[in-house]
Amino acid sequence: MPELRKDPIIGRWVIIATERAARPMDFAKEKDPVALNNNCPFCEGQKKKTPPEILAYHPPGRAKDSPDWWISVVSNKFPALGVEGDLDRRGDGIYDRMNGVGAHEVIIECPDHDKKYFELAPIHAGDMLWSFRERILDLKKDPRMEYILIFKNHGKAAGASLAHPHAQLIALPMVPAHVKQEISGGRQYIDFKERCIFCDIVSQELSAKSRIVDENEDFLCFAPYASRFPFETWIIPKHHQSHFETTERPQIDRMASLLQSTLSRMDSVLGNPPFNYILHSAPLKEPPMAHFHWHLEIIPKLTHVAGFEWGSGFYINPMPPEQAAKYLREANLSSIKEPAHAN
Amino acid sequence: MPELRKDPIIGRWVIIATERAARPMDFAKEKDPVALNNNCPFCEGQKKKTPPEILAYHPPGRAKDSPDWWISVVSNKFPALGVEGDLDRRGDGIYDRMNGVGAHEVIIECPDHDKKYFELAPIHAGDMLWSFRERILDLKKDPRMEYILIFKNHGKAAGASLAHPHAQLIALPMVPAHVKQEISGGRQYIDFKERCIFCDIVSQELSAKSRIVDENEDFLCFAPYASRFPFETWIIPKHHQSHFETTERPQIDRMASLLQSTLSRMDSVLGNPPFNYILHSAPLKEPPMAHFHWHLEIIPKLTHVAGFEWGSGFYINPMPPEQAAKYLREANLSSIKEPAHAN
Repeated sequence: MPELRKDPIIGRWVIIATERAARPMDFAKEKDPVALNNNCPFCEGQKKKTPPEILAYHPPGRAKDSPDWWISVVSNKFPALGVEGDLDRRGDGIYDRMNGVGAHEVIIECPDHDKKYFELAPIHAGDMLWSFRERILDLKKDPRMEYILIFKNHGKAAGASLAHPHAQLIALPMVPAHVKQEISGGRQYIDFKERCIFCDIVSQELSAKSRIVDENEDFLCFAPYASRFPFETWIIPKHHQSHFETTERPQIDRMASLLQSTLSRMDSVLGNPPFNYILHSAPLKEPPMAHFHWHLEIIPKLTHVAGFEWGSGFYINPMPPEQAAKYLREANLSSIKEPAHAN
Repeated sequence: MPELRKDPIIGRWVIIATERAARPMDFAKEKDPVALNNNCPFCEGQKKKTPPEILAYHPPGRAKDSPDWWISVVSNKFPALGVEGDLDRRGDGIYDRMNGVGAHEVIIECPDHDKKYFELAPIHAGDMLWSFRERILDLKKDPRMEYILIFKNHGKAAGASLAHPHAQLIALPMVPAHVKQEISGGRQYIDFKERCIFCDIVSQELSAKSRIVDENEDFLCFAPYASRFPFETWIIPKHHQSHFETTERPQIDRMASLLQSTLSRMDSVLGNPPFNYILHSAPLKEPPMAHFHWHLEIIPKLTHVAGFEWGSGFYINPMPPEQAAKYLREANLSSIKEPAHAN
C-alpha cells in the first residue's frame, strides 16, 4: 500500500509509492502519451483493459461495461492511493505517516480518442461536470475522506500519459496544502473585512474589466491579478458558493459552456497547448463556508522555467494577465459548435 | 520596470514582466538551450556579449573584464528585476503591488562550456560557493533587499536557457513563500519543543541512516522523509546555522566537496539529469534565528507529472526516499577528480 508522509517543517503531505518504485533509468527514458487508437484502453473496443465502470452515462437499457456510453468513470488502473484499509496514523521518530488510503478514478470524457472537450455537444460537456458532482457526492459518504481533488492533465508536458480525453479524481484523507492556504487566507480576510475575498475579487474584476476573458450569468472567467503562469485563467461562480457539489444542473451547464469557450480560446491562441486544470472546492466535511469560494484554475504548461519555482514558491511570469486576457478575449471561436453563451 | 504583485488570497508575490511580454505563439516554439560554444555569451572570447563583471576570481594583475578568470559574476542581460528605483508600494483596489526592484545576477562557474560542477578542482568548486557568500554580503548592504535567492537550472527541462554552467542570484524586496512557510513551521516547532526542527531532522537522519546519501564533518546529504520528487536531496549543515553567508571558508570547502560528490552521484545514477538546486537561507535582515537552519535543496527534474501539483501543492512521488538514497549512496564516483570526502 502507498504511504502518506508529512513534511515535518511545513506540514505538507505527500504520497510515496512504496511498492512499485521505478528504477532510476526509467525516469530518463520517458514515454510519449499513448497516441494510437489501437493501443488506447479508453477507446471503445479496448475498454476491457480498464477496471469495471463506476458510473456511466449511456442510453437506457444498456448493460454495465458494455459499449455505447458517452461518459465513463473507472478506477485508475495504477492508483496513487488504495481504497481498502485503515489510515493507521502513526509516528516515526519526529515524522508522521499514515496508510495511503483514498480513491483514484478516471473520468473518460467521450468515446472518441481525438475529440476535445470544447468540441463536445453542450449537453455532453455539462454531463462531464455533472459526473464530477455525482462522484463527489458518492465518495463523500466515506468518513475516511477529507478532500476530493479533480484535475485534468492534457498533453505530455502537463503530465498526461494517455492522449484520450479524460480527467482524474483523487479522494484524500487530508486537505491539500494550496487549498488549506486559500482557506486560511480567506479566513484572515473575512476576520478583517467581514467579506469573502473571492467575492471581492469577482467584484473588482467585473468593474476593472481588463482581466476578464469571458463571463455568463453565473460565472466569470478571468486572468488572476498575480498570475503565476502565462495565460493562467480561473473560472469562478459570481455568487458565493463554497462547495462545488452543491451546484445545480442549470449552473453546471453554464459552467460547462464557459469551460468549453475558455479551452477553445486557449486552443486557438496557443495552438493546442498542454494544460492542467484543478478544481478547488471546500473540504468535504466543512459546512458551507463564508470565507471560501470554489473555483477552477486552468494552467497552460508553456514554459520550462518553473524548475526553481518548486523550491522557492516564487514565480516569474513573462505574460501580464491583462495582455493574456486580451488575447483570449479576442480569440477566434469558430471551433465551438454552439454559441458559447447559450444560457 | 517589472512589477511585483501580491496574490490577495494566499499572499504570495510574483514578478510580472510588464514590458517585454512574449507573443502567445512564442511560448509554443520553445528554443533549445544554446549548446554551441561559438554562440555562447559565457564562453571566453564571446564574453563581450555579457554585461560587465561584478565579481571575478582571476590571477593577480588581470584587468577587469579581460580573459583569464575562473569564476565570473555578471548582471543577467534580461533581468527579472531592475536595480534602480523605489519600491513605491501601492494598492490597486483590493490588490497590492510594488515596483520590480531587485538584482538578478549570473554566476558563471568556469570558462569551459562543457565542464560540470563535479569535474572542477576542489578549490575551484569551493570558490564557486564562496562567490555566493561574497555577493550576498555585498547586496545585503542595500536596505531595499529582504532576501537573496540563489539557484541553478541545469538542462532544458529544468529551465536552463544556456548550457554553459552557471548559477543565478535574485535579490528580492520580500521573502519567498516557501522560505516563509519553513520559517513559520520552524517557529511552531520551537514553541512546542524548544528545539530547532532542522537540527532534529539531522539528528534523526544520522541515527536512522536509511536516507543518508553522504556526509562529512560539517554537512549531511540526505533524501528527505517526505520528498516531493524522485531523488530530491538536501545538503544541510550538521551544526545549527541560520544564515549561509556566515559560513567560513573551511566549511564552504566541505560543502563544495559534498555538493560535488552528490551531483556526481546523480549524474552517474540518472545519466546527466536536468536538475535545479535552491539555497534556502534566513532572511537578510533577521538576526541569527534559532528556528531556521540554512540548507540546499537539489531537485532532479525527471517527471512531467508535476502539472497539477502546482495547483494543489499535493505531490505523488514514485520513488521512496530510502531507495533513492540507496541508489545514490552506492553510485559509482569514478568521475570525481579528488576523493569526495577530502576534508
